[in-house]
Amino acid sequence: MALVVVGGVAAGLSAAARARRIDPRLEIVVLEKGPVISYGACGLPYFVEGRVHEASQLVVYTPEYFRKERNIDVRTGTKVVSISHPRREVLLESGARVRYDRLVIATGARCDSAGIAGVNQPHVFTLHTIEDAERMREFLRERQPKRAVVIGGGYIGVEAADALRRHGLRVTVLDRSVNVLLREDAWVTDAVRKQLEDHGVELRTGVPVQQIEPDRVADIPCDMVVLSAGFKPNVEIAAAVGVEIGRSGAIATDERMETNVTGVYAAGDCAEVMHVVTGRPAYIPLGTTANKAGRVAGANAAGGRERFHGIVGTSIVGIFGMAFATTGLSIEQARREGFSPVSARIEAQARPRYFQGRKTTVELVADRATRRLLGGAVVGEEGASGRINVIATALESRMRVDEFEQLDLAYSPPFAPVWDPLLIAAQQLLKEF
Amino acid sequence: MALVVVGGVAAGLSAAARARRIDPRLEIVVLEKGPVISYGACGLPYFVEGRVHEASQLVVYTPEYFRKERNIDVRTGTKVVSISHPRREVLLESGARVRYDRLVIATGARCDSAGIAGVNQPHVFTLHTIEDAERMREFLRERQPKRAVVIGGGYIGVEAADALRRHGLRVTVLDRSVNVLLREDAWVTDAVRKQLEDHGVELRTGVPVQQIEPDRVADIPCDMVVLSAGFKPNVEIAAAVGVEIGRSGAIATDERMETNVTGVYAAGDCAEVMHVVTGRPAYIPLGTTANKAGRVAGANAAGGRERFHGIVGTSIVGIFGMAFATTGLSIEQARREGFSPVSARIEAQARPRYFQGRKTTVELVADRATRRLLGGAVVGEEGASGRINVIATALESRMRVDEFEQLDLAYSPPFAPVWDPLLIAAQQLLKEF
Repeated sequence: MALVVVGGVAAGLSAAARARRIDPRLEIVVLEKGPVISYGACGLPYFVEGRVHEASQLVVYTPEYFRKERNIDVRTGTKVVSISHPRREVLLESGARVRYDRLVIATGARCDSAGIAGVNQPHVFTLHTIEDAERMREFLRERQPKRAVVIGGGYIGVEAADALRRHGLRVTVLDRSVNVLLREDAWVTDAVRKQLEDHGVELRTGVPVQQIEPDRVADIPCDMVVLSAGFKPNVEIAAAVGVEIGRSGAIATDERMETNVTGVYAAGDCAEVMHVVTGRPAYIPLGTTANKAGRVAGANAAGGRERFHGIVGTSIVGIFGMAFATTGLSIEQARREGFSPVSARIEAQARPRYFQGRKTTVELVADRATRRLLGGAVVGEEGASGRINVIATALESRMRVDEFEQLDLAYSPPFAPVWDPLLIAAQQLLKEF
Repeated sequence: MALVVVGGVAAGLSAAARARRIDPRLEIVVLEKGPVISYGACGLPYFVEGRVHEASQLVVYTPEYFRKERNIDVRTGTKVVSISHPRREVLLESGARVRYDRLVIATGARCDSAGIAGVNQPHVFTLHTIEDAERMREFLRERQPKRAVVIGGGYIGVEAADALRRHGLRVTVLDRSVNVLLREDAWVTDAVRKQLEDHGVELRTGVPVQQIEPDRVADIPCDMVVLSAGFKPNVEIAAAVGVEIGRSGAIATDERMETNVTGVYAAGDCAEVMHVVTGRPAYIPLGTTANKAGRVAGANAAGGRERFHGIVGTSIVGIFGMAFATTGLSIEQARREGFSPVSARIEAQARPRYFQGRKTTVELVADRATRRLLGGAVVGEEGASGRINVIATALESRMRVDEFEQLDLAYSPPFAPVWDPLLIAAQQLLKEF
């Protein structure tokens, strides 16, 4: 039995490693088009900033490690150009073929520059791979740019803005949508805008970009451009052999992470996963999901029987020391999904006043009919990560506000107030019913 | 209709405030034996330490606030000595009587010095009220003690030890049990011991104290003693009128926080609550529970219909900057409750290595038969509060390890690693099945 994994970053390597645990005798080959594997792409903005000194710090495992310790054949610089499923072969750019019995597609995503002209200029960057980040660092060092435009106000966009501002550049972030962080949430957008502006970064929303000119973008003069306008899943080689593509444009899978083509699995930034709150497939490409779904794909490809329960869409981003964390649905998203949402937003101390606690904002969204929690957001400098995770855990267990309001959360003055902001938000939300 | 609340700290005032919301016309009287109300008792060790400068910072509300803003008659220095339920009256120490239709008993607990001789010496302190803490501060300032013994290794005991050590005293903590923090958990005790010893505090477990001598305790020379050897619920006036006392020695209540005597409710440090993991009543006196159960008691006493879902026993304590957080059952406790527990304990980075993350220890306990989570503990300097709250939330929703392992937790380098320590612990635990 041979398992071939296309892609050697998060989902691909999680799949391979898990497959090895399930079946010690399986032949496993990982084909990665890039020069390195297993890197923490989410660390790239911090490498650009300089807080992470060496790109090598972002690499968790090497091909040698996988070869020696796991008996997994990892080949870098190896691009798959097509799949012949009837022959159970993948065709490489080099012309060589690799046979498989089971296939895991973990081809990831690419930056979506569709519709923007001028992306191939030397002062235009994406921040997707280690090479991207190294090229950006070199440009910063050698060209000393003074003014940057970041196209796209998603996670990478605002993190890049933060990093470039710390290098002393004037920075403007543009987003074609009216909101940032991929969330339809006006107050979160306002909070992000305030934090950016307080640190000298301008945010302009509702600004579509058609063209990057050599010295300006959308009439903003600049000598550096970061393009982070969204992800496009790499589904072409899969689609060509009849793998079903979901409505989102990413590969459709079942809860075992198998595609409609038996023996072909998909996971990571190229694939959809189940959204526990909506009960429908979603495309929310994140490293955490890639790792978890990859493990399930690998286990099943190796003969195991595991399922991926799905996601609730939890994410967090730090902007100049302030955390912006969201999970589940915003009230707008909930409405569009057919719920009758109610919401409450409160501001409270993250820790007791007498312990110098700072303010944190918590929003909770619930369904009027079922009283079930649908989503939440936490913005603050302290404890946002822990609090969004509590909401996420409640979402995964389909908790109602009534139960959430009485959660037995830890209290001690150095850590939290006796009424945690989460519980205050829940009390407020209950008044809406 | 008149509601009388006996006790004006956490549970009593939560009950009164909630009753007012439910019924704006109810006559509400709160009788508090002490001179102040509504203080954060958990802040007392930090007042002793000096980090909280004024005792007044620990007082959240004054009787005047309740009178003016809530139309609640709060009387301090008013001790209830007995209840005459047939006459619906409480009798005060002054000889006066106060009539009620509904009664909330929130009489709290007292330090349990049973069996220890010599507790009334001037160098012996408890840390239960603001007066206790003020007296201790004065003693520290005026008498400059050099060596303290803390009797009892519960939360207050270790926090007091921390505070006194920061004042420069040599400190020894004694506990009659083999474990500290009221948890049967040898590794947590070992971790506490190491943290205390690393900061110059000695811990001796399995040492019962019979007597406090003027210059020594259990052969340890000292010129100051802190007694924090446990809580004893104040149930006497309730028991005298036939209110049922549970096995724990605290007042038994139903899920509406009503006692067996109709119209008489109880909440806070004098009452039991339901433990969601064991499904049985438990006595775990904590401020968070007092506030929540008090709200429910007050709502129902005012004619509402609310229920308290119960607790999972979450707590956290900081010792010299390290958090020790526990929830649910330890493996020993689970065994004693009749489960067949399995557990796993891992050490992992609280944040990515390349982001200077520190190590954190996570233990999870689950039931072999049902795969349901039963408890957990987190020890570390970063993120322990958020992580224990995630476990607590999972316990309240009776989550199985399989679901917990796939929780969609927030990831971004400044906050957490891509595999959160909680998920690594769950992966490890799954290997035990």
